[in-house]
Amino acid sequence: MTYDKYFSADVPSFLRSPVREIFRKVDLSAICSFAGGYPAASTFPVEDIKALSASVLEKYGTRPLQYGATQGVPELREAIAARYGVPVSQVQITTSSQQGIDICSRILLNPGDIVLAHYPVYLGALQSFRSYRAEVRPLEFPEEPVSSGNPAPKFIYVIPDFNNPSGETMTLEEREGVVALSRELDCLIVEDSPYREIRYSGTPVPTIRELAPERTLHLGSFSKVFAPGFRLGWIIGPEELLEQIFVCKQALDLCPPVYDQYIAAEFLSGGALDGNLVKTLSQYRERRDLMLSLLEKYMPEGVEWTRPDGGLFLWVTLPEGVDTVAMYDEALSKGVAYVAGSFFYPDGSHRNTMRLNYTFIPREKMEPGIRTLAGVICNALNIK
Amino acid sequence: MTYDKYFSADVPSFLRSPVREIFRKVDLSAICSFAGGYPAASTFPVEDIKALSASVLEKYGTRPLQYGATQGVPELREAIAARYGVPVSQVQITTSSQQGIDICSRILLNPGDIVLAHYPVYLGALQSFRSYRAEVRPLEFPEEPVSSGNPAPKFIYVIPDFNNPSGETMTLEEREGVVALSRELDCLIVEDSPYREIRYSGTPVPTIRELAPERTLHLGSFSKVFAPGFRLGWIIGPEELLEQIFVCKQALDLCPPVYDQYIAAEFLSGGALDGNLVKTLSQYRERRDLMLSLLEKYMPEGVEWTRPDGGLFLWVTLPEGVDTVAMYDEALSKGVAYVAGSFFYPDGSHRNTMRLNYTFIPREKMEPGIRTLAGVICNALNIK
Repeated sequence: MTYDKYFSADVPSFLRSPVREIFRKVDLSAICSFAGGYPAASTFPVEDIKALSASVLEKYGTRPLQYGATQGVPELREAIAARYGVPVSQVQITTSSQQGIDICSRILLNPGDIVLAHYPVYLGALQSFRSYRAEVRPLEFPEEPVSSGNPAPKFIYVIPDFNNPSGETMTLEEREGVVALSRELDCLIVEDSPYREIRYSGTPVPTIRELAPERTLHLGSFSKVFAPGFRLGWIIGPEELLEQIFVCKQALDLCPPVYDQYIAAEFLSGGALDGNLVKTLSQYRERRDLMLSLLEKYMPEGVEWTRPDGGLFLWVTLPEGVDTVAMYDEALSKGVAYVAGSFFYPDGSHRNTMRLNYTFIPREKMEPGIRTLAGVICNALNIK
Repeated sequence: MTYDKYFSADVPSFLRSPVREIFRKVDLSAICSFAGGYPAASTFPVEDIKALSASVLEKYGTRPLQYGATQGVPELREAIAARYGVPVSQVQITTSSQQGIDICSRILLNPGDIVLAHYPVYLGALQSFRSYRAEVRPLEFPEEPVSSGNPAPKFIYVIPDFNNPSGETMTLEEREGVVALSRELDCLIVEDSPYREIRYSGTPVPTIRELAPERTLHLGSFSKVFAPGFRLGWIIGPEELLEQIFVCKQALDLCPPVYDQYIAAEFLSGGALDGNLVKTLSQYRERRDLMLSLLEKYMPEGVEWTRPDGGLFLWVTLPEGVDTVAMYDEALSKGVAYVAGSFFYPDGSHRNTMRLNYTFIPREKMEPGIRTLAGVICNALNIK
């Protein structure tokens, strides 16, 4: 029996995840993988979670095991509202910030609608926008941002802090440019902000939400500061938009995981999150510095890379003509993995780029990994 | 600033949940509420979960806190596959069985597509189908099922065991009728089965999936047998359909909650689930019997109700002309709540029906609740 005829017309436009294909090919734990987007497991507060698991059941009894409010449990919404200085009524808890992207897409996008996105674009967002048959167009920097959309985009999608995949951070001027453009085009802004708290150098820049709260849906996540296995994120936005988000969320999964929310609320309001962040930032700073020094040491001339102030990734640009998609099988066969940069461009361009993650790979594998990768690149460049 | 113009054309077709409106009006814990669809918190295995939370962190270390596989963690998929006698490759874990409904809708439905549903229909399913702008049509029983759909429906949606809201169970003949119809119309079947294990009388009937595995997406849930706060369900179905479900699931939330999955896997494979079920079934049987005897004792002539063999609900039919929507404010003011039956009909018909839940209300409130409800009904019938 074949099933193609039963599928929604939207299904062919679902992007088959290239990352999945990478994971299918090989056991990444057996090689030097810079491919995944995982935080370092060493930053996970296992003992805190063990203690908090027991204590929320003692404190709240069966409540963490029952259905919870669609908006999220009050304790967690309050803790997030307090941390970010917003009213509780502007906070919706989501089952991961990926769900936050899906919800924004679902309540806002019609087929054919335009999303202006800062390229290169997070794969999971591209996948979501495409599944709603939206058209993704580039928001260019540092030139004057695209100013005449016809028809106007529904929203501008950006990761202003430590972009996945590029690792870059938008300046205040760029953020103000995005806000000005959104006002000119009369569209909304989806500010995807999973990495904002993972800053280990430089000075924080105001969020776009702070610059234009009336136009911005701000997506936060616990996955990088706590434990991605909890699948918890949040949306901060205008109450009128949150009303629609509530109805959508109810149809999606009724409410976010409740037990996890209580644990996260205690972790946050009790101050443990801040303690854990200090440890995480120090580890990640050291890993970034190691990665930068290894790239400096091994990469041949003509290879460039970003120097992130935070987050999990950096972005490597090879000389024109080198194809990181074509090069991938050789890299894998030599025991090193990355994500080809063209996957983050809707048109598959920029085939001479790649994303490297430096938070997940065991530290002792970083040097052999970068050395091997540099060798593969030298081969591609015909450098002996 | 107003936001209406930004919304997707699908947003107006999102059903505003009437249950939410009920919850908004009043603190249901202060009255006798038969309205919610919650399991009894007394069935939740708090001590088991406390112990398992610690033990999965000891056993698996940081793994329950990291991102997990999109299909679900292998340990849980294997435990479910073993319990239901299916290959692991046919099991996808979902973030609640509500998400299972949403996923099936999303991969199968185009705007205008038809879903044949067994009326009255679970509200969360109606909400999901409508959000994809599908048209819901009735699948009638016990007469010959609708046999000429033109165009054919995409799928038939049924809750064969202890339907929410009616509490009724489909006979083997009815299930075979659904399968025959799906073959005749060449459509799929979505078998929503969150209550199947909550049978406390009568004899189990084969699932529709067992009768037609090649056409059926079977949705299961931990919410009624374990802890709804974990938001875990599963889909069992043909591998070709699960391929598409994988891609959809990835765009929705990347993976189900990982810590919760490890705890659930241990709870299931270690045998604790079966022990907890025995306790749950005995409590629910007693509650159903109490509810039936109270209805017998207090309800005026002309009022009828179903006698469920399992699940959480029964369905009350009042004499024609009594309007349970209109009657609701009086009921609330006297301290009793229910869900009007017309909410479960896409056309808002059957205004003389209501759904009663008997698993969540404290036992001591059942008699005053039913006595009050009977009084409100007598008023509506002008019985002194």
